[in-house]
Amino acid sequence: MAPSDIRPRRLITGFSNPTVKALRALREKKHRKAAGKFLAEGLRLLTDARECGHLPEVLVLATGRDPHPLLAELEAAVAAAGGEVIETSPDILSKITGKDNPQAVAGVFAEFNTSLASLDRSRADIWLVAQALRDPGNLGTMLRTGDAIGAGGLILIDDCADPFSVEAVRASMGAVFTQSIARAEWSEFEGWLRGGAGQLVAASLREAQPYRVAPYAAPCFVMVGNESRGLPEAYEMACDLRVTMPMKGRADSLNAAVAAAVLGYEVLAGLEQRD
Amino acid sequence: MAPSDIRPRRLITGFSNPTVKALRALREKKHRKAAGKFLAEGLRLLTDARECGHLPEVLVLATGRDPHPLLAELEAAVAAAGGEVIETSPDILSKITGKDNPQAVAGVFAEFNTSLASLDRSRADIWLVAQALRDPGNLGTMLRTGDAIGAGGLILIDDCADPFSVEAVRASMGAVFTQSIARAEWSEFEGWLRGGAGQLVAASLREAQPYRVAPYAAPCFVMVGNESRGLPEAYEMACDLRVTMPMKGRADSLNAAVAAAVLGYEVLAGLEQRD
Repeated sequence: MAPSDIRPRRLITGFSNPTVKALRALREKKHRKAAGKFLAEGLRLLTDARECGHLPEVLVLATGRDPHPLLAELEAAVAAAGGEVIETSPDILSKITGKDNPQAVAGVFAEFNTSLASLDRSRADIWLVAQALRDPGNLGTMLRTGDAIGAGGLILIDDCADPFSVEAVRASMGAVFTQSIARAEWSEFEGWLRGGAGQLVAASLREAQPYRVAPYAAPCFVMVGNESRGLPEAYEMACDLRVTMPMKGRADSLNAAVAAAVLGYEVLAGLEQRD
Repeated sequence: MAPSDIRPRRLITGFSNPTVKALRALREKKHRKAAGKFLAEGLRLLTDARECGHLPEVLVLATGRDPHPLLAELEAAVAAAGGEVIETSPDILSKITGKDNPQAVAGVFAEFNTSLASLDRSRADIWLVAQALRDPGNLGTMLRTGDAIGAGGLILIDDCADPFSVEAVRASMGAVFTQSIARAEWSEFEGWLRGGAGQLVAASLREAQPYRVAPYAAPCFVMVGNESRGLPEAYEMACDLRVTMPMKGRADSLNAAVAAAVLGYEVLAGLEQRD
């Protein structure tokens, strides 16, 4: 027997199997919240997660998948940690993740602690902050950008989309596992921010200076607002620095994830220039 | 009678009305292509369109909408141009646009000429280029960013998402009307590009120089590749300039629309510095 054959795998063949229903329910926020778990899919993403110290509690493999050494390692690690390994058809996996062309593997992870107290601001020079961001794709894209610019994590203010939704996790391309995530109301965030070092920066049209020459300082908290309404005026006025980006056309704003990225890369360059 | 009451409006009350079906069909690419028309929604977007010289052939108004001077102007302009004005319930409008919280107004526009020959490259210093971009949200976001950086338009290479899809139009926030759009195969684009002035630039890991100090030159064509595969190597090697952006984390790439924006803003700053 090959080593991979001695590990117990549970085979699920029916769409109406209760486990399938429970996994599929994790696509809905209320079920994720009740279970404290979320779904992530794809070998690359799950391998990133493992290398960052996150193993799935349940690993779901599609039958007929191509063998891969990283997949075998992942399965061994999950089994060794006492996790469950399930094998099912690509159709059922597709039903679980809601994706037409499902990846060969998905995992169920425990949600992380998302309290502000869990953040160590001294760990990174840049942090991203999103206020009332409603689009999970934008939220995941911000996580991905945060990973790229070496940010410590993403702080979600007021009523944001769920960072553990399938869409956000997918758009994050694995950064949901590398970036710290915190959720807080504005007043709570403001208190926490002012309890230590930190420069709060936002793109704004109010008393703003050009974003290319602004005096960014670490740790720098780069904040963007809701997709339709932008940031509330009071939040902008609470910033240490308001910056403006060129708007050469008819529009007066950028997509929220784009604004965070353009500003985030500028802060990165500004901080490195000063080193 | 108030002036707005003397214009003929057709009232549609049934979900199964053939006009509703025809309008709703414009959400599908094959029907858009057959009709040569597309849908756009929202007063702000339709007003932007009008100010850029694009009037809808059909204007659809929701009953019970709040009156608005811009809406009255829009209706008058459509009627004066011989267009049709339809009034229907918010539920039916929602069915047409596929949006849960529909805007009070939508319009049907004739698709534009998207041949390369229709582009005047001397009109702008920056042009965005997308290769095999599959996500209509990314495509619309690139249009929106192009508007912001003063780009002339977006050139779609190979098999891209449809810029006239409801999702792309929505994400463009009106920039679908301000940016030129062209579609071409790579070989056609390369021939057109080399038939005039133009610097082709892409983010790349191959023999690339740091994006903050690269010698950008107008007209600069900023190209990004497919969301999963990136650019084909041959396309990267055909570039005049390959640049690299910092990747401080685990990921080796950015979201395509984000990459276009970070690079696009850098090109804008680089060109302005030289002026």
